[in-house]
Amino acid sequence: MISEYIANLKIKQYGGSFISCPSSWAATHVTSSYHKLYFPVSGEARITAKGHTHFLKERQLMLIPKGVTHSFSLTESCHLEKYWLHFTAYSEGTDLFSQFTDITVWDFFSDDMFTKLTGYFDQLFATERTNAVELSLLQQASLFQICALLFACSPEKIPSTLENAPLHSKKSVILKYIDEHLADSLTIEQLAKVVYMHPTAFIRYFKNRMGMPPLKYIKYLRLERAKLYLETTDYAIQEIASLTGFTTTSHFSREFKAAYGMSPVQDRKSVY
Amino acid sequence: MISEYIANLKIKQYGGSFISCPSSWAATHVTSSYHKLYFPVSGEARITAKGHTHFLKERQLMLIPKGVTHSFSLTESCHLEKYWLHFTAYSEGTDLFSQFTDITVWDFFSDDMFTKLTGYFDQLFATERTNAVELSLLQQASLFQICALLFACSPEKIPSTLENAPLHSKKSVILKYIDEHLADSLTIEQLAKVVYMHPTAFIRYFKNRMGMPPLKYIKYLRLERAKLYLETTDYAIQEIASLTGFTTTSHFSREFKAAYGMSPVQDRKSVY
Repeated sequence: MISEYIANLKIKQYGGSFISCPSSWAATHVTSSYHKLYFPVSGEARITAKGHTHFLKERQLMLIPKGVTHSFSLTESCHLEKYWLHFTAYSEGTDLFSQFTDITVWDFFSDDMFTKLTGYFDQLFATERTNAVELSLLQQASLFQICALLFACSPEKIPSTLENAPLHSKKSVILKYIDEHLADSLTIEQLAKVVYMHPTAFIRYFKNRMGMPPLKYIKYLRLERAKLYLETTDYAIQEIASLTGFTTTSHFSREFKAAYGMSPVQDRKSVY
Repeated sequence: MISEYIANLKIKQYGGSFISCPSSWAATHVTSSYHKLYFPVSGEARITAKGHTHFLKERQLMLIPKGVTHSFSLTESCHLEKYWLHFTAYSEGTDLFSQFTDITVWDFFSDDMFTKLTGYFDQLFATERTNAVELSLLQQASLFQICALLFACSPEKIPSTLENAPLHSKKSVILKYIDEHLADSLTIEQLAKVVYMHPTAFIRYFKNRMGMPPLKYIKYLRLERAKLYLETTDYAIQEIASLTGFTTTSHFSREFKAAYGMSPVQDRKSVY
């Protein structure tokens, strides 16, 4: 059920602010493990991805979903004031933005919509609050409001798995279990038991619903989680391997390289 | 760290609306496993708890924390229009409102504050949205905003454990692990391993920080969670026992009765 999925949703911010960009603001072929939002209020940005160049103008909001390799810089005008936000949004091990596989741009030309969005950003980046708990709670509220606005503008991007999903479906129980036990060793027998199924029937069921066998899905999720930790925390490689359920660091590095074409250390460096 | 705790916070709503109360609105000696908010905009409510009677008037917000036995009814005026909300707010297995052990009342007499609070409630109970995902996200945002307002009004009620807590402390790692593995069988050896401690040292550490030994804490958490399921879901007793890590239904019923003085079935009936 959607409300259950959203009640379990964790939206995490990995940086963000209102900024007047210096001319040095540029990078080529970056890929991040979090989603990015850019919202210029004056000036212009150039973003290139998948062979297409976007000139992002004021009052246009751009979403660069995680995993989309892109380059960015100022344009000839050399002027850009923008809100920016890096974030993830997961519930039950699945990404709320899974249907966004490409860069998306929305116009916020009407004053009404513009005020709404900048209001959410201002609330998110405000620092003058009575205390740290109020501050964090309001930041969290802003993240939910910003995501709500994106889905209000893009109803067609609602994950199809969320529509008509029954409350506490086997699938959501399984995904939640995997998400919460990712650091542990997970076996088919154990997962099958969680939903009271025979292991063989469980594998068939899982493949049918998720499009891949359970152990492949678990490896995928472990690597994605590890990539996020690499790019957003300063945990040691060894800690990350342990947190994402890899038994040894060398096993982790080997799998990571096979999946992303670079070592964990290279990936971490590529962000800065 | 507070922001980490809040990013992991799940606020769940268990009913709520704007309602003109019928004269039948009354109950005696009820105890719930969720927090209650009452906010009259006209009329008056009588709430009695711990031998003290409150006459709750318009523009006064009342929090009845979970576990506080109370009675409620209309007053002689026989008129009450109010917003009400039942909710829980947990992160890492601990209640955001753990410092609220008694009924608390705040005045929202200024138009400014009144408009803010009713705005949050109206957003929470609104149903006209573009789609179900926008709706759920905005409801979630409202819950965070309402909690933010309560802590803005009561900075002294911030859980002391949150202040100056280091990022990813052993304690928060342990509490998160217990919270996520409550349905599984949990052993001291397993918990100690999670934070790389010797079992004996772990027990000493846990008692020191949490005021009770780990297994006692786990039992307490299991019973609290079970009580919540009983009062807010229609799961069978057997399912609840399994979800909260009790190996048999009879063991669950015995422990529940010892803790709350009534059987699970009696507790479920007491809510209605």
